[in-house]
Amino acid sequence: MKNKEIPYKIYLDEKDIPKTWYNMRADMKNKPAPLLNPGTLKPMKKEELAAVFCDDLIEQELDNDTAYFPIPEEIQEFYKMYRPSPLVRAYRLEEKLGTPAKIYYKFEGNNTSGSHKLNSAIAQAYYAKKQGLKGVTTETGAGQWGTALSMACAYLGLDLKVYMVKVSYEQKPFRREVMRTYGASVTPSPSTETEVGRKILAAHPGTTGSLGCAISEAVEKAVTSEGYRYVLGSVLNQVLLHQSVIGVEAKTALDKYGIKPDIIIGCAGGGSNLGGLIAPFMGEKLRGEADYRIIAVEPASCPSFTRGVYAYDFCDTGMVCPLAKMYTLGSDFIPAPNHAGGLRYHGMSPVLSQLYHDGYMEAVSVKQTDVFEAAELFARTEGILPAPESSHAIRASIDEALKCKETGEEKTILFGLTGTGYFDMVAYEKYHEGEMEDYIPSDDDIKKTTDKLPKVNL
Amino acid sequence: MKNKEIPYKIYLDEKDIPKTWYNMRADMKNKPAPLLNPGTLKPMKKEELAAVFCDDLIEQELDNDTAYFPIPEEIQEFYKMYRPSPLVRAYRLEEKLGTPAKIYYKFEGNNTSGSHKLNSAIAQAYYAKKQGLKGVTTETGAGQWGTALSMACAYLGLDLKVYMVKVSYEQKPFRREVMRTYGASVTPSPSTETEVGRKILAAHPGTTGSLGCAISEAVEKAVTSEGYRYVLGSVLNQVLLHQSVIGVEAKTALDKYGIKPDIIIGCAGGGSNLGGLIAPFMGEKLRGEADYRIIAVEPASCPSFTRGVYAYDFCDTGMVCPLAKMYTLGSDFIPAPNHAGGLRYHGMSPVLSQLYHDGYMEAVSVKQTDVFEAAELFARTEGILPAPESSHAIRASIDEALKCKETGEEKTILFGLTGTGYFDMVAYEKYHEGEMEDYIPSDDDIKKTTDKLPKVNL
Repeated sequence: MKNKEIPYKIYLDEKDIPKTWYNMRADMKNKPAPLLNPGTLKPMKKEELAAVFCDDLIEQELDNDTAYFPIPEEIQEFYKMYRPSPLVRAYRLEEKLGTPAKIYYKFEGNNTSGSHKLNSAIAQAYYAKKQGLKGVTTETGAGQWGTALSMACAYLGLDLKVYMVKVSYEQKPFRREVMRTYGASVTPSPSTETEVGRKILAAHPGTTGSLGCAISEAVEKAVTSEGYRYVLGSVLNQVLLHQSVIGVEAKTALDKYGIKPDIIIGCAGGGSNLGGLIAPFMGEKLRGEADYRIIAVEPASCPSFTRGVYAYDFCDTGMVCPLAKMYTLGSDFIPAPNHAGGLRYHGMSPVLSQLYHDGYMEAVSVKQTDVFEAAELFARTEGILPAPESSHAIRASIDEALKCKETGEEKTILFGLTGTGYFDMVAYEKYHEGEMEDYIPSDDDIKKTTDKLPKVNL
Repeated sequence: MKNKEIPYKIYLDEKDIPKTWYNMRADMKNKPAPLLNPGTLKPMKKEELAAVFCDDLIEQELDNDTAYFPIPEEIQEFYKMYRPSPLVRAYRLEEKLGTPAKIYYKFEGNNTSGSHKLNSAIAQAYYAKKQGLKGVTTETGAGQWGTALSMACAYLGLDLKVYMVKVSYEQKPFRREVMRTYGASVTPSPSTETEVGRKILAAHPGTTGSLGCAISEAVEKAVTSEGYRYVLGSVLNQVLLHQSVIGVEAKTALDKYGIKPDIIIGCAGGGSNLGGLIAPFMGEKLRGEADYRIIAVEPASCPSFTRGVYAYDFCDTGMVCPLAKMYTLGSDFIPAPNHAGGLRYHGMSPVLSQLYHDGYMEAVSVKQTDVFEAAELFARTEGILPAPESSHAIRASIDEALKCKETGEEKTILFGLTGTGYFDMVAYEKYHEGEMEDYIPSDDDIKKTTDKLPKVNL
């Protein structure tokens, strides 16, 4: 048995909750490409963005120079509700695997939203409130973001309209009910409430919706409602900025015990968790102060990093959102109905895309049956039922730990355990019943949608 | 705004997790009455109990003298997986209520079982393993106990057969699936697997089951299977002993900041959470070292303390379990279908019953619509979605805090937040839709079942 001088859970004191967010862009030589106006395909100005987004958030979105943003006191107070989150040493998993590797995970699921999404939800709601808005609109797929935002809005007394992908709305009535408990209105998307919704319904009667479509509806609702703006739970630079609280806190806890990770692993859908977890480590790497292997893990069914192209693309189906330069499978790409709703997005954070393009990080894709095998092993050994999304990171971490077992290397692995799977038991049931399938798109499938990428000449 | 010198969450260090359980019975002048053999109605001997329960647990069950039991190291290790649990200062709730009261809650829901049940589950599984058993059987209603036990059994490599009240099995497929993730076999009760199950099915075709009936099946399965014993998540003395970890930890955290509660509040079904939370405080009270108001909160639909009688009764429907002297509504009492499954039990812990009878604690009953009103307020202010069971304690705590608002008293309230409500969204939905009703049994309803109590002459 290993010497257990490091506690199972490293909890920082309340006073050690980060007081600044760290902006990786400040240390990047190649900055992420600017957002483009979907009409003109020219870089968007602040004024254009202001119809959609909150003013302060636009500042954060566009700022490629400021390394540290002070976290407003009100947000710090809210963070105290569920932060600091524990950094856990996975002694039991290590023992089960028989690996010499040391595995740590930063667990962001110990809050009612069930995931890390709350870190940015409260920030975005705060700035909306500060601007004197009545409310905000958003979309949600798996429901974690919608839940987080409903908690933040309830706390600040802001109205919230959520467009929930229809298939999730129907399959996850409990998620919907949690949002209602926090006072949000939840509409299945596509709906007849918006022009874009009606268009999509006319073109695809009986459609069960998609994230890209729900985004379009939420944006339209925001720009056509007095006193509302649109907020988004991933992809955007501002979201990665807020989520840096995960990485800064994790690094503070590791530093307290003099631990330096060799490998940092996170699941990647839009990139909010991974971008947040790696932030301070990537900062050191960008500044040449330290080196880390950083691995993004994505589903084999929606492999934007590993099989997509790096190009400008639409963020939504209705093409009302700004365009971003990112690794993408094409905005028309419909991922197979896998069970990691939060990772079913055709694109990827522009910041992470640039970093990946410049060789600062790696990416792997994993099959969902392998993911659930890892999830169940993790649940039984570590006692936490992980979300399917988070389990992608578990899978990759186990694979790295097993490599260490072969080589005998005592590597230190840090991964992000973004959330819990209490609302994902249908997926676990499918896995238990042997009914879970692996979907892997063919090269042709991907070519079909990437061939249709917009032509951009800057 | 109040001075916030006490942190929002008081986390103890891992080394401060209690190393002993405290046994209130050692300090009680009037000991709880002995268990009786259901056949002879005479006090049960160790040998008779040994057919049903694990040997070490029988020692704990019968020991009215030993004040402190050392917690075995293996259990301490397991506790580190999710303990110490946070003691939270409810600053936001206080502010929302505008009360001068100081409210603290001990939150036991931050683990995958979603409740405090894990504290006793690991202990019972540990002693079963130590005895060299193959496995254990149990029943579960709401599913929290079954989930907790499945986690403990998976950890120790013990087989587990769960009899789940049929209505819960059907209405809570996700709970069932969590148990399966941890490798348990789950059977809807009544089943045709046991004699008692077949009898009940014959007498009541189409019945959706009850906790009392599932207990009978689990006990029968244990005594008729080689290498199996039966374990139970509440009511028994041993369970209160294990759950004392909650109270000891809470008291250590309060002592650290020199805080002395005036009122201690917990929900009470079988009494495991309340008995655990109050243990060290009640100890001081019994020894005359300190005084506290201690309040048990029960549903108006199942009011064993406030409207039951103090007498010997059967613990289960099939009358195969030992009899206990307790506050009871009669083992034939069928509580209305309220949404706090964990509180729908006709009886009450013999230890708590004796303490209540001797005037060491009070009891109140609350209506479920009032409970859900409190639950929603709590969710929105404190950011935790509470279980319906726990919300009974929230309701009573809010009521006490509002009394302080009237009188201006700065009382300190401590309550037990036993778990989270992620698997109870059907109940929340009913509440949101205005479809939730309050069931209050008539005096006649209660008389019908208490009139049938067994006649015991010791």
